[in-house]
Amino acid sequence: MDKYFMEQALLEARKAYELDEVPVGVVIVRNEEIIARGYNLKESLKNALAHGEIIAINKASEYLGGWRLIDCTMYVTIEPCPMCAGAIMSARIENLVIGAKDPRMGGCGSVVDIVTNPGFNHMVSVKWGVLESECTDIMQEFFKSLRERKKAEKKLRKLKELELKESELKES
Amino acid sequence: MDKYFMEQALLEARKAYELDEVPVGVVIVRNEEIIARGYNLKESLKNALAHGEIIAINKASEYLGGWRLIDCTMYVTIEPCPMCAGAIMSARIENLVIGAKDPRMGGCGSVVDIVTNPGFNHMVSVKWGVLESECTDIMQEFFKSLRERKKAEKKLRKLKELELKESELKES
Repeated sequence: MDKYFMEQALLEARKAYELDEVPVGVVIVRNEEIIARGYNLKESLKNALAHGEIIAINKASEYLGGWRLIDCTMYVTIEPCPMCAGAIMSARIENLVIGAKDPRMGGCGSVVDIVTNPGFNHMVSVKWGVLESECTDIMQEFFKSLRERKKAEKKLRKLKELELKESELKES
Repeated sequence: MDKYFMEQALLEARKAYELDEVPVGVVIVRNEEIIARGYNLKESLKNALAHGEIIAINKASEYLGGWRLIDCTMYVTIEPCPMCAGAIMSARIENLVIGAKDPRMGGCGSVVDIVTNPGFNHMVSVKWGVLESECTDIMQEFFKSLRERKKAEKKLRKLKELELKESELKES
């Protein structure tokens, strides 16, 4: 079942990718049923809070009619950042299944550990590495294409600058 | 100016108090002007994400038309939890002024440190203790009255149970 639900989270990540958003996808599952979905929409919504996890937690709270997401499991393609890890704690999500680590921003152990920190009054049970390579691949593909696009844009900018200089020289 | 803006955050905390919410208040300031306000509405909105900081960041992003809250200072009566500390990082808030520490849930040094952690690509400048006693007082007042109310409810419940038993004895 873990693989099936992570595939569903990857479908959400793909939606983010198509909108030029960093491709992270999420589903929240209760009694083997998906009760909420989300994907990163930070740039589209111009809002730093619009990570997939936050969007999915909002939907799940609405669906369940309360702030405690009891008996819920979140499947997320990439390790949640501190904000999302804190939101998972705040909503009392019990289980978290993560595709791949985020060594730069991870809030579940990679940079800080919020979800299994004994200092807090709630602890999340975490499972790592479900469809890890698929979750990493879509991220690498995204950042590779982003770098290539930026490179092409830079080249185009330089070309235009050269053309402008040439036309100025001709005029003088 | 710090005292003035923290007084404004305390006014927001008072609004939460009046709705039986844990009294935490927030204002976000840019160019010495309050651009967003918020207070804890977790129980009222039945949503674990509805902390004052999150509500204020949402409003500020809408006001500024982008996810980067550049040149912004957040004033908050109580140390943000990990979710809110992460949201402050995510929105690139530059300065954070905190009234009082939260030794149980604090995400700015008390339990974990997210906002000045050298492991992340952004660091927040933090100032502690502005109107500290006022910020602590409203919390203590809230939890004292909550304990008293719960005690009174328990007493009432026991009284009703006794009455029920008495009437059952009379009937038999």
